[in-house]
Amino acid sequence: MFANTFGTYLRLTTFGESHGPAMGAVIDGMPAGVDFDLATHLQPHLDRRRPGQSNITTARAEADRAELLSGVFDGKTLGTPICIVVHNTDARSRDYDPNYFRPGHADRTWQEKFGHRDHRGGGRASGRETLCRVIGGAFAARLLPPQTRVVAFTQQIGEHIARSIPEHLNTDLIDQHPTRCPDPEVAERISQELVDCKSQGDSRGGVIELRIDHCPIGLGEPVFAKLKARLADAMMGIGAVVGVSLGDAPAAASARGIDFHTGIPGDGPDAGISPAASGIQGGISNGERITLRVFFKPASTIGSMAREGRHDPCIVPRAVPVVEAMANLVLADLLLASRLNQHLTP
Amino acid sequence: MFANTFGTYLRLTTFGESHGPAMGAVIDGMPAGVDFDLATHLQPHLDRRRPGQSNITTARAEADRAELLSGVFDGKTLGTPICIVVHNTDARSRDYDPNYFRPGHADRTWQEKFGHRDHRGGGRASGRETLCRVIGGAFAARLLPPQTRVVAFTQQIGEHIARSIPEHLNTDLIDQHPTRCPDPEVAERISQELVDCKSQGDSRGGVIELRIDHCPIGLGEPVFAKLKARLADAMMGIGAVVGVSLGDAPAAASARGIDFHTGIPGDGPDAGISPAASGIQGGISNGERITLRVFFKPASTIGSMAREGRHDPCIVPRAVPVVEAMANLVLADLLLASRLNQHLTP
Amino acid sequence: MFANTFGTYLRLTTFGESHGPAMGAVIDGMPAGVDFDLATHLQPHLDRRRPGQSNITTARAEADRAELLSGVFDGKTLGTPICIVVHNTDARSRDYDPNYFRPGHADRTWQEKFGHRDHRGGGRASGRETLCRVIGGAFAARLLPPQTRVVAFTQQIGEHIARSIPEHLNTDLIDQHPTRCPDPEVAERISQELVDCKSQGDSRGGVIELRIDHCPIGLGEPVFAKLKARLADAMMGIGAVVGVSLGDAPAAASARGIDFHTGIPGDGPDAGISPAASGIQGGISNGERITLRVFFKPASTIGSMAREGRHDPCIVPRAVPVVEAMANLVLADLLLASRLNQHLTP
Amino acid sequence: MFANTFGTYLRLTTFGESHGPAMGAVIDGMPAGVDFDLATHLQPHLDRRRPGQSNITTARAEADRAELLSGVFDGKTLGTPICIVVHNTDARSRDYDPNYFRPGHADRTWQEKFGHRDHRGGGRASGRETLCRVIGGAFAARLLPPQTRVVAFTQQIGEHIARSIPEHLNTDLIDQHPTRCPDPEVAERISQELVDCKSQGDSRGGVIELRIDHCPIGLGEPVFAKLKARLADAMMGIGAVVGVSLGDAPAAASARGIDFHTGIPGDGPDAGISPAASGIQGGISNGERITLRVFFKPASTIGSMAREGRHDPCIVPRAVPVVEAMANLVLADLLLASRLNQHLTP
Repeated sequence: MFANTFGTYLRLTTFGESHGPAMGAVIDGMPAGVDFDLATHLQPHLDRRRPGQSNITTARAEADRAELLSGVFDGKTLGTPICIVVHNTDARSRDYDPNYFRPGHADRTWQEKFGHRDHRGGGRASGRETLCRVIGGAFAARLLPPQTRVVAFTQQIGEHIARSIPEHLNTDLIDQHPTRCPDPEVAERISQELVDCKSQGDSRGGVIELRIDHCPIGLGEPVFAKLKARLADAMMGIGAVVGVSLGDAPAAASARGIDFHTGIPGDGPDAGISPAASGIQGGISNGERITLRVFFKPASTIGSMAREGRHDPCIVPRAVPVVEAMANLVLADLLLASRLNQHLTP
Repeated sequence: MFANTFGTYLRLTTFGESHGPAMGAVIDGMPAGVDFDLATHLQPHLDRRRPGQSNITTARAEADRAELLSGVFDGKTLGTPICIVVHNTDARSRDYDPNYFRPGHADRTWQEKFGHRDHRGGGRASGRETLCRVIGGAFAARLLPPQTRVVAFTQQIGEHIARSIPEHLNTDLIDQHPTRCPDPEVAERISQELVDCKSQGDSRGGVIELRIDHCPIGLGEPVFAKLKARLADAMMGIGAVVGVSLGDAPAAASARGIDFHTGIPGDGPDAGISPAASGIQGGISNGERITLRVFFKPASTIGSMAREGRHDPCIVPRAVPVVEAMANLVLADLLLASRLNQHLTP
Repeated sequence: MFANTFGTYLRLTTFGESHGPAMGAVIDGMPAGVDFDLATHLQPHLDRRRPGQSNITTARAEADRAELLSGVFDGKTLGTPICIVVHNTDARSRDYDPNYFRPGHADRTWQEKFGHRDHRGGGRASGRETLCRVIGGAFAARLLPPQTRVVAFTQQIGEHIARSIPEHLNTDLIDQHPTRCPDPEVAERISQELVDCKSQGDSRGGVIELRIDHCPIGLGEPVFAKLKARLADAMMGIGAVVGVSLGDAPAAASARGIDFHTGIPGDGPDAGISPAASGIQGGISNGERITLRVFFKPASTIGSMAREGRHDPCIVPRAVPVVEAMANLVLADLLLASRLNQHLTP
Repeated sequence: MFANTFGTYLRLTTFGESHGPAMGAVIDGMPAGVDFDLATHLQPHLDRRRPGQSNITTARAEADRAELLSGVFDGKTLGTPICIVVHNTDARSRDYDPNYFRPGHADRTWQEKFGHRDHRGGGRASGRETLCRVIGGAFAARLLPPQTRVVAFTQQIGEHIARSIPEHLNTDLIDQHPTRCPDPEVAERISQELVDCKSQGDSRGGVIELRIDHCPIGLGEPVFAKLKARLADAMMGIGAVVGVSLGDAPAAASARGIDFHTGIPGDGPDAGISPAASGIQGGISNGERITLRVFFKPASTIGSMAREGRHDPCIVPRAVPVVEAMANLVLADLLLASRLNQHLTP
């Protein structure tokens, strides 16, 4: 529960103010000997998150080039802390008034908490900090079994909800549209709405759905560090997130037990598995698909500031790789945790 | 992120199997000199959670008497670890078949993870473990300012949603009805439905709403350990919880930004506060009311086992003090954290 | 670095005031499926530490019977937190004056730090707290490979230094004499001196030597958590310890490098091993014997209080199992740590 | 107990391989609003540690210029993580043979532990990593009260022991001689011996004495995290350190209790203080001087490699600022810890 570190066994520590010299991440606890190539395993993830990708994102122009300072040698991790730095190149601090607290932003609470803050663009409360999470997630992903698939996509923006979603999703398919909504028709409507939003100084929220397929069995610590609790913590640690739902939580809350629970009876290989568990039972993964919905409120910058400044009318599309990164961090951390409590009986 | 410890600065470690000799809690990090009387400050909370309170809860008869082993002397905390033990007195392990994995329960994943488990009633995956959280919460509550009010209540069970809820709630008012729903008419309908459920081997889920009033300003660590992230982690660490929502997350996700955000303009004392933020901005409390909804799936024990065994048809009413306890633990932990990063300028 | 918890992966939390209801330990992080029998694996260690063993120890009569509350079922660990309690039965708080700060004891600093303390016999600063460490060490020992041997003995008390020490030591041999000094002649002289001390209100310190043979290779984390650093931390956390030496540190400090270092040359199986390293190189165990000396100052209770009260004239003999316990905790913790950073290359 | 992080509340994480692109440090937990100027508060400490200061140190030419990436703004700390990077500029990896394990070094154990290592000059096991600790210590020092004085000096090298040491020491006085021994006559003899050592491929160890004056009262957590335990952990985490002694531990071990303990009687302001306690009683600072001796073995590089390579014949003089840095980190960490358990009674 330290402010700038996520994870217990695989620990991501992020640093950097959005308008300071650089953003960066230190990943500690990464085992040695893992193949890692920055161009292949990291940069594409940063490119998915970086600003200026399309007409529905902010115009801040950052190349977000990752620079390796430590921890990888000859294409393999060393088991030592990995430090990656991304220099800030297009920080225009003149856009910000140090004496004005932007409504809905962290400016005011941050000032009250710390007394002294970097008023240039949100400091560490800026969404720009999430690029460091994408760095951490890229390393975390390398620890997961190759068959494990962690895929997030835009399920809803404003009132537009994706309906026809392919059973098998992947990044290429999701990135075909800048909204990252895999329902092409809905994607188009979202896109138009966001262009309108931008010109009107309005903003939108939405829902990202995360699907984890072929999750290793046994992830999640009983009692407090349940897999669902760690995922919720990870997602609610993202700026605009206001809710998390395992499966469809509102539907579950109003369902009848005898309808909801349909555990497989008998003593076959799937005995005791409940589809309603969304892949997590007793806080522990059972290998079935895990579906998590992450709810975002509308972006806080509205009105004239939104029309003139460099802001996203909706952060959901760019948050997709951040949600994936946080999920990867949780899974890798719990995977390492499971090395510790493995029973010793043969 | 350790399995059995919650909190970083105020650390609750729980132990005990539901059918072993005892349940217990160690609370470490509690400052010295805090008045604490078991009969006044702890036992009433345990009584609210314990089984056998009414005809809509399990018939397991546990007095749940707290026994102090350490950490309090002459009516005050010592600054040393507090250990409280509750002996199990009505554990009927004969009710459980070690070779049967109950659907929807942790039995199967636990067995796979640990290889060796206490099959008598769920071991530590039993809801009985939550009494230890109530112990921790009782101490945590003593660290909060007296004006801070942490109140939870049953907002929904099955399809019955409380509509007329008093603005000012308290435990006496909430406990007037065994459902802990403060809308008397809805409470009565819930009560009847749960009696029917019990006879039919059916179960229900629901929603607990948590309200935190007069929260100290400045709680929550920026970046990862945001107040909302810590609350989500705490709630999703409770057995049957499947979702968490700050305010009304589904509504926020579909709202227009210009409607949702109505930050107070100007430079008065409330300048920059956004009501939509639900008392948390940039992850940090701003002193306004925090509203959190916690979604529960229907209880997993259904069918003949539910009719014959000792189970609750709906755990929501008994979970109300658990939700409060977890919230108190989060707030006290972050209150201690805020002692660390206070700025040093005058 | 939490006050009452030792270890990161295998975590021992101790609780209890020496004159309160009970002392106790919670061991968390213990993998499931480890055979553990209290009578065989724990009670003998407690018996070695408990008071009243001979005429050279305190007369406080405590049976120190371990009572299991959780974590072991059917003779095997469950992977859940283990709680063991030892009730205090012979606590005579009337012997202590709450308004008197005993020189050399923790009374005064404790009072200043906490404001409120349990003045009955030292509270948690009492040596009685170390029984909880013996409990933790007993579980830790079960995680080590059977060939690993962790043996401590009295190497010096006052001016009497053991000279003829068998190459192969074990508990039976060391416990043949109540001083736990394996040089029979020196042991006898120590014994006489301590009887004299007791009658004269005098006290003695000494040195415990710890030998770790057949330590698993690779224990110790580079940089900060070196094996030697963890051992030093563990030993200096024992009340009267004032120094720690890997091998003979004063001799090493004044030696010439070309005499001290005699690394095995060539490329055979022992190439690069330096005997001077005392089994630890670069902070990591290399499988050779590790020798650690732990220095104790004379017991703080002297004068009339020592003649009349129930105190040991020298705590070294009873500290021998405590030193072993702390070493076992360090080794088991680092053994679990090594599960995390194992390289993944075949 | 994480490999690359030191401290619990003020957390220093170091990264960087000695022959990689850069060394660096992230300091997290630093409160906001602390004045910090790199040129004044950091660079002088790095200059004291850097190579090439005199004819008795290695010839590796590193400017060791600190570059700030985050956490300080307008001359004050932000309460956010501070990242400082020092680029490696004179790394000659060709000097190292990847297939040769240098005796006495970490090469072999590191290879066994990680499977894959940066063989160019020791990687993170290199003494070069300690510059990151000096960075951390420089920030830690800014949290201590101005009257607290943490001063280390060379007390012994080889057989030469400083005898006439001024009561009041400071950095200027200690740095008057490159040996950092404040006894001028002994310093001169040491200097000559080290020049001889270098030409002969020999090396020396020694003792650094650390004095902490006007330490805040109440630092140190009872039971495990005693001040003396934390200091021992910190010092034994430095590469060549083989022993730690609070005061003169060997002398204490052989002293008679009635001689050793001379606690101040009565009820005056110093009542209960024992000079023998070396400023720490019950693990907690009492405001008196704390004296710690840190024992170093002779440098491991000897023979032809020492004559031809770039190595220090004795690392003690350059380790003086490292010892101070580690002490500052311990004190600042415990000072923050003491904010948490302050009693609440008026």
